[in-house]
Amino acid sequence: MNSNKKIRVVQWGLGAMGRGMAQLITTKEGLELVGAIDVNPALDGKDVGEVLGVDPLDVKVTTDPSSILDSSKVDVVTIATTSWVKNQIDDLSTILSAGVNVVSIAEEMSAPEAQNPELAEKLDDLAKANGVSIVGVGVNPGFVLDHLVVALTSGSQQVTKVEARRVNDLAPYGETVLRTQGVGTTPEEFEAGVADGSIVGHVGFPESVRLISDALGLGVDCVEQHVEPIIAKVARQARDRVIEPGRVAGCNHTAVGRRGDEEVIRLIHPQQVDPGAEGTETGDYITISGVPEISMCIQPEIAGGKATAGICVNTIPRIFAATPGLKRVIDLPSPSALMGPSAYERR
Amino acid sequence: MNSNKKIRVVQWGLGAMGRGMAQLITTKEGLELVGAIDVNPALDGKDVGEVLGVDPLDVKVTTDPSSILDSSKVDVVTIATTSWVKNQIDDLSTILSAGVNVVSIAEEMSAPEAQNPELAEKLDDLAKANGVSIVGVGVNPGFVLDHLVVALTSGSQQVTKVEARRVNDLAPYGETVLRTQGVGTTPEEFEAGVADGSIVGHVGFPESVRLISDALGLGVDCVEQHVEPIIAKVARQARDRVIEPGRVAGCNHTAVGRRGDEEVIRLIHPQQVDPGAEGTETGDYITISGVPEISMCIQPEIAGGKATAGICVNTIPRIFAATPGLKRVIDLPSPSALMGPSAYERR
Repeated sequence: MNSNKKIRVVQWGLGAMGRGMAQLITTKEGLELVGAIDVNPALDGKDVGEVLGVDPLDVKVTTDPSSILDSSKVDVVTIATTSWVKNQIDDLSTILSAGVNVVSIAEEMSAPEAQNPELAEKLDDLAKANGVSIVGVGVNPGFVLDHLVVALTSGSQQVTKVEARRVNDLAPYGETVLRTQGVGTTPEEFEAGVADGSIVGHVGFPESVRLISDALGLGVDCVEQHVEPIIAKVARQARDRVIEPGRVAGCNHTAVGRRGDEEVIRLIHPQQVDPGAEGTETGDYITISGVPEISMCIQPEIAGGKATAGICVNTIPRIFAATPGLKRVIDLPSPSALMGPSAYERR
Repeated sequence: MNSNKKIRVVQWGLGAMGRGMAQLITTKEGLELVGAIDVNPALDGKDVGEVLGVDPLDVKVTTDPSSILDSSKVDVVTIATTSWVKNQIDDLSTILSAGVNVVSIAEEMSAPEAQNPELAEKLDDLAKANGVSIVGVGVNPGFVLDHLVVALTSGSQQVTKVEARRVNDLAPYGETVLRTQGVGTTPEEFEAGVADGSIVGHVGFPESVRLISDALGLGVDCVEQHVEPIIAKVARQARDRVIEPGRVAGCNHTAVGRRGDEEVIRLIHPQQVDPGAEGTETGDYITISGVPEISMCIQPEIAGGKATAGICVNTIPRIFAATPGLKRVIDLPSPSALMGPSAYERR
């Protein structure tokens, strides 16, 4: 580590989530934001503080990763550019090849072997060859519907089935999120959108199922997913519009993990605008059937945007201390809030 | 690891909890129970299966640890003999010196540096000198009021205060537990029992506070504990007796962790017989103040005896794979239910 013992971090991607992560990094006494990368030429050379809307940080944005990825000056890159491994593999390879550790919030990176086994192997090989480590995290996948499930089974003698459900409210979210959940469409448009791939529902179920199955050894050999529209029965209030009754208020996405014919994991994630209008409370719910039986609820649900930026930053000391290779959140000591110097020293 | 790739375990201590652990070990396909140790001469040479009340296991109990602790034949010892580090230090030293890893359920071992810093350092040195690792776990401390709190902050940007409360029912427990909680005493007898040390309440609060403070970096520099009697207002039903109104039904034990003048951790653990008789539901409750706010409940509470045996056995692959030294549950990947071979292979 460098002489002042702070972990030196570069933020790659300055969209809404990346800016939140950069901002959070600047508040942590054990971390130092030493650079930022974005594809947007309008940001090139700007002070990161200006981009974040805070005081100047004396750290510039660059559009050229090679100008900043020097392992003698950078310990970890946090990257927020896409949900998909195949769209991030080149950038991840660039970082690892430079001898720098990575925390990604790409949903598929939480367990890249689930849907991209060859790319996962490539990342593992590249990380090991360069003596660094890489992990994907986020609120979901990476925390509520997988890592938290795993942690709840810490004392379980037997687990026969896991069911986890996350009910959230899309009202605060912008156009991109609403569109990919089909909010505001007619039921027919929703069906067409699912068919043509423009309505995707939740990204990350195969990864969450894989994390739970691998950690517990449940032996899931088949994952099925199902999406259906949530039709508004009453008017629902989004950030900038009203969803009228009869229109789609969101997408109910379910994944089932089976071992042979037996259902051992069921994950349920209805994402909709203003569920309270129809009396549905938001929350995170986990039921573990086995010995002992466990029934957990968190109400309201753990705030998604804040927790994704949070877990990414909280994982920085974990990946910095990890042995080389591709890791999942279940392979590392649990991330936890970084509130003081001892949280870094003891890791 | 030995050729059949099972982790070879010796159970030390065959009281109620140790027998439950031994029994559980025999059900796990990645583990092999290869021996048992107990001080009771009446058990010496008996088949462990006979002691457990199951079919013969072709594994004998011995009263002589040195006859069985051979690092070429044993990978891990699980030990259940006492709550206190000072009463276990000689046995732990014997195991480590033999080059064997340890999982202890002694409450103080979950964070031995909290109250026994010199012994913790000795254990760390001895483990490192022998290339093995040692950890303490249990339902509490070691899981519900500390490790689970830490895992819940995985995505937290800020944590200003943690409050965790575990409300359980002592009705299933035997005489020893009831006596140490003061059940059945008069209020005056309770006060005298606390003063003379015969009524201890919960063992493990300084350790839980230490685990949370260290993981999050909360900087707790003072831990205060408080015990008070829970007086029955109506008759309460214990396993073998009734607690009459006016008598003590249990002990409400509280710990507060402060950083300077600021309270940052509050742990509350009322242990009583039949709380339902007065309308109190059992459960585990965790509130994390910060960004985001988190309010979790588990009802009923995670069953204590089952979860202590469970987390001890689930931690075996974790400590077997750990780097040498003294560990806490927060230093390792989360324990999780062991339900199949992949749960061992991936660790």
